[in-house]
Amino acid sequence: MALYGGIEAGGTKFVCAIGNSPENIQAEARIPTTQPDETLSAAIDFFRHFLIKKNQRLDGIGIGSFGPLDLNPSSLHFGKITATPKPGWAFTDLVRNIQEQTGVPTVLDTDVNAAAFGEMVWGAAQGLKCFVYLTIGTGIGGGLIVSGEPHHGLVHPEMGHLRIPRDPLQDPYQGVCPFHGDCLEGLCSGPALKDRYGQSAETFPKDHPAWELVAHYIGLALNDIICITSPQRIILGGGVMQQHTLLPTIRLKVLQNLNRYVHSPAILDQIDQYIVAPGLGGRAGVLGAIALAEKTFPRIH
Amino acid sequence: MALYGGIEAGGTKFVCAIGNSPENIQAEARIPTTQPDETLSAAIDFFRHFLIKKNQRLDGIGIGSFGPLDLNPSSLHFGKITATPKPGWAFTDLVRNIQEQTGVPTVLDTDVNAAAFGEMVWGAAQGLKCFVYLTIGTGIGGGLIVSGEPHHGLVHPEMGHLRIPRDPLQDPYQGVCPFHGDCLEGLCSGPALKDRYGQSAETFPKDHPAWELVAHYIGLALNDIICITSPQRIILGGGVMQQHTLLPTIRLKVLQNLNRYVHSPAILDQIDQYIVAPGLGGRAGVLGAIALAEKTFPRIH
Repeated sequence: MALYGGIEAGGTKFVCAIGNSPENIQAEARIPTTQPDETLSAAIDFFRHFLIKKNQRLDGIGIGSFGPLDLNPSSLHFGKITATPKPGWAFTDLVRNIQEQTGVPTVLDTDVNAAAFGEMVWGAAQGLKCFVYLTIGTGIGGGLIVSGEPHHGLVHPEMGHLRIPRDPLQDPYQGVCPFHGDCLEGLCSGPALKDRYGQSAETFPKDHPAWELVAHYIGLALNDIICITSPQRIILGGGVMQQHTLLPTIRLKVLQNLNRYVHSPAILDQIDQYIVAPGLGGRAGVLGAIALAEKTFPRIH
Repeated sequence: MALYGGIEAGGTKFVCAIGNSPENIQAEARIPTTQPDETLSAAIDFFRHFLIKKNQRLDGIGIGSFGPLDLNPSSLHFGKITATPKPGWAFTDLVRNIQEQTGVPTVLDTDVNAAAFGEMVWGAAQGLKCFVYLTIGTGIGGGLIVSGEPHHGLVHPEMGHLRIPRDPLQDPYQGVCPFHGDCLEGLCSGPALKDRYGQSAETFPKDHPAWELVAHYIGLALNDIICITSPQRIILGGGVMQQHTLLPTIRLKVLQNLNRYVHSPAILDQIDQYIVAPGLGGRAGVLGAIALAEKTFPRIH
């Protein structure tokens, strides 16, 4: 039975795992994200230990990474993190480092495309071909699956940086995004909520006004995602969504925003199955990375 | 040599044509859009005249229609215009009427997907696999091509109904969309401009303040389209875009909105080739319908 490696490469930690399904994970490690050399060395050691000490074989490694990434195979910088503001990480070559130092073929996609793909294979989007996975946490990002494949286009989606309506009379807060101020991420990410209210969103009670505001802005963003891509489902993950009262409020906001214009029973009659939590919970990223590796490097019998 | 029919089914006219390329159009007709029976009969007569009187063969007919449409082959209403507010047209069965009364196999897509497809085959998106065609006219709509195929998803995109930022202190106009007020179409369509300024946009001089405002809002909409789908190019068509000073202003607005966050040379260094006018001009719709028919019903030799 083929085994695969998965890496969820995040801004605060790298989650590495070996296995071939949610039920068969044979090893797992969490590595703090410090400097690229140090973090990648620790990840490579995790896989080498398995390959050498345990004398096992891996058919492929998948990486779902924070971005921006170069995913264009014909580009000079293919396989790298590109112009990230994260200190030290700009132009880190993820694919080449992992592939050459483990000897295992390696595939890279965005963290959110990997999570979306994992949800399609094992989670809340099984059987679907076109859907969106949006994470709302330290950052905001969206993965888009079209025809069952992770979508890239020119670069890859950057759904955190949508411009959505903000009425300065109702909400004078100007947002925290260093590039755009009050884009979606600038208004609704964990750091935005901390900046706005002076303390971490994890400490907010259920009836804190932040939740109504977050639902309002996410509801506007989902309106635009629906109008542009017409997904069959939207999965909402990430730390901010841990406040479980958010999901039903967001569903109501989306219905109000669309105002019955998109005339599909999937939206009008079944919104609870249209906007959902991840089936794989917080493991969507690393399991999705494994799923991408399985898809890219199938064992030929 | 195979010949195809194309219908651009619009709210004010149906453009029908027979041919197989922009250089080989053998017949063309413009039929006013009145009631479905009358309009469809005239379109059918156009094709039957060619088939019977001229004793010619058509291998397929493509329709690019105003919507919303049911494009799901397993749906009860497949092939129909669905819940349009246009009087008399709700649940008109386009595919069945045309197909049964001409005897020619017929394929349907949105007017903007058809135009986008035509631009890929013969126009400004040749060689591309992922791009957007946005029309700004009586209505606003977007066609999305992914992996060289017209994208549908759950229903089909409805890009006119994006919610974009409007600062009520800067712009108190509340928009004309009966569903959403100040969505993109509510602010920037031809009827919105007429409602706002009291006369038709065609009469506005180059330095009319409308153009700066339209460029501002379209620039915000394109920011969101780029963040969600990462297209390789964006084509802007439709009557409002006939004001040719708009295109360069929109390009500048998009660069300002993105603020170098999407770090692609295609955007940063070649914006003039990234946001462009249609290569097929006003003929993208009907030629695209012919191109869809050619793709769907290829002649097997």
